[in-house]
Amino acid sequence: MRFRKIPEETIKRLPTYLRGILFISQQGHHNVSSRELADYLGTNSWQIRKDFSYFGDFGTPGVGYDTKKLIQHIKKILKLDIVHKAALVGVGNLGSAVLAYQHFDMYGLAISAAFDTDPVKIGKKINNVRIEDASKISSLKKRKINIGIIAVPLDAAKDTTDALVKAGVKAILNFSPCNIIVPKKVKVITIDIAMDLARLPYYL
Amino acid sequence: MRFRKIPEETIKRLPTYLRGILFISQQGHHNVSSRELADYLGTNSWQIRKDFSYFGDFGTPGVGYDTKKLIQHIKKILKLDIVHKAALVGVGNLGSAVLAYQHFDMYGLAISAAFDTDPVKIGKKINNVRIEDASKISSLKKRKINIGIIAVPLDAAKDTTDALVKAGVKAILNFSPCNIIVPKKVKVITIDIAMDLARLPYYL
Repeated sequence: MRFRKIPEETIKRLPTYLRGILFISQQGHHNVSSRELADYLGTNSWQIRKDFSYFGDFGTPGVGYDTKKLIQHIKKILKLDIVHKAALVGVGNLGSAVLAYQHFDMYGLAISAAFDTDPVKIGKKINNVRIEDASKISSLKKRKINIGIIAVPLDAAKDTTDALVKAGVKAILNFSPCNIIVPKKVKVITIDIAMDLARLPYYL
Repeated sequence: MRFRKIPEETIKRLPTYLRGILFISQQGHHNVSSRELADYLGTNSWQIRKDFSYFGDFGTPGVGYDTKKLIQHIKKILKLDIVHKAALVGVGNLGSAVLAYQHFDMYGLAISAAFDTDPVKIGKKINNVRIEDASKISSLKKRKINIGIIAVPLDAAKDTTDALVKAGVKAILNFSPCNIIVPKKVKVITIDIAMDLARLPYYL
C-alpha cells in the first residue's frame, strides 16, 4: 500500500537506478553508496537518497546499500520480481529493433508476441518470436499478455490502440508520434523520438 | 537571456505542445485555447498556461492563443526557427528507423549524415542520406553538424561518444543503454527503451 505514495518522478528514476546497481553488482561489488551510484549514473546522490527514502531506510552509513537487497527491493516495487509478457505491434525497422533488443530479460520483461499486417512478415521469427497476423491481437487476453508496445505508422496508431485495449492490455509503450486515447485505467508511456531530438538545439 | 530561466521540465514539454499546435493549425484553426490544447494532448490546461507564462503572456482571454504566433514563439525558444543538421552513428534496425523517420523536418531538424563501420552498409543511401565510414565522424566540425545521434551497440557507445565530442558535437541523443560520459558543455538526452518498458508493470 505504501508504495502507491511514491511520486511518479521517483518511479521514473527507479529503473535507471536498477540498471546502475545491476551493473555495479555484476562487477563484483556487494555494497554501493549513493555517491558511487550517482557518479556511475551521472546524477545527484541526494536525489538518490531521497528517492530511496520513500521505501524505507535500508542503507548502512559508511557502508552504503547492500546491492543484492537493493536490487530485490527495487524489482519488487516496480513489480519486476515476476516475469511480465509484452506484445509488440508493428514489426518495421523500429519494431524489429525492439524485438531484437537483448536487455529486457534482466528487468523481468519478455516480448512474447509480435503482430504485423504485412503478409511477407507474418510467420517469420525474430529473436524466437513468431510474427502473427494483427487480427490475432484479440488473443492476448487468453494468453495473459497485458503489456502492449505500439510501433506502427501514425495512421495505424488509433486502430492498434483500440485493439490492444479491447484485448485487455493495461499498459502501453507507444512509439507513434501522437497522443493515443485510452481508458483511464490504462497507463501509456510515449517515446516520441522527434520530440526528444527537438529539445537538443535549445542547448546548443 | 530570459529564456535561460525557463525550467528544464517546461523545455521538456514544449516540443509536445509544438506538435499539438502544429496539428491543430493544420486542421485550419487560427486560435487555440489552453483547454483545447490540453484536451488534444491529454494533459492539464493549468500546466500549459503556467509553461507559456514563462515566455510572456500572449494569449487573449476567451479567444486563446494565435496558433501561428505560438508556433513561431515556441520554435524560437527551442531554436527550431533555423534548420539544424544532425549526424546519426549506427545504422542498425534502430538507426535505420531513425533515418527513415519522416517527421523531423517539421521541427527544423535534418539528419544529414550517417555513419557505420559495416562495409556492407557504407555507401548505401537511406532517405537520401549516404552512409559513411565511421572513421569520417571527424569531418562533422567542418560540415558544421553539431548534433549527434548514437544508435550503436553498447560496446561501441564510449568510442562513438568520444569521436562525436572530438568532432565538436554539442548535443547528443543517446539510444545506447548506458550513461555516456561527456564534458559538461555537451548536452545528452538518453532514450533507453528498456527503462521505459520497465516502468509499465508498476501500473498493472
